[in-house]
Amino acid sequence: MLIVHVHVHVKQKYVEAFKEAITENARESLKEEGVVRFDIMQRSDDPERFVLQEVYRDEDAPKRHKETAHYKKWRAVVEEMMAEPRYSIKYQNIFPGDGGWG
Amino acid sequence: MLIVHVHVHVKQKYVEAFKEAITENARESLKEEGVVRFDIMQRSDDPERFVLQEVYRDEDAPKRHKETAHYKKWRAVVEEMMAEPRYSIKYQNIFPGDGGWG
Repeated sequence: MLIVHVHVHVKQKYVEAFKEAITENARESLKEEGVVRFDIMQRSDDPERFVLQEVYRDEDAPKRHKETAHYKKWRAVVEEMMAEPRYSIKYQNIFPGDGGWG
Repeated sequence: MLIVHVHVHVKQKYVEAFKEAITENARESLKEEGVVRFDIMQRSDDPERFVLQEVYRDEDAPKRHKETAHYKKWRAVVEEMMAEPRYSIKYQNIFPGDGGWG
């Protein structure tokens, strides 16, 4: 299993539009075989900042995710919404076991 | 619901001891009424860094968590393991619904 935190900073005027676009992407992503979770959280003290927590079944799943139509659509739609480039950090699961995330 | 990411940087020699101590704390924390999830992840490209993802049922639950014996024990045990002070970032849940985290 692989956990990816995508850190996103959006322009203030696009906060609500971003939430809509990423929620649609999350719903579609959860239909992928390789996607265990797709969580969206918004920073309490800075609502322009989000973390997307993407939990993948294996190391290859992120690559397959990026080939999907919903990912490509999302990437294009949110391009102008970004206040700065997104960045990702990869994590190994320590607890709970891999079965505790699904 | 409230999501807290605690960012932890431990000294290299304490990495395994930290994993044991935080796993014990996580197991006990999950028995608290106010704790929905307690996830531990280790950064893939820097194994001395961890994120603790603490998902609380309400705004008061973190305070109650910090009053528990297992939290106080953990805090004392890991004190010398820290390479730098821990810091926390609070998030609001956007997706999935609050029922999708438990």
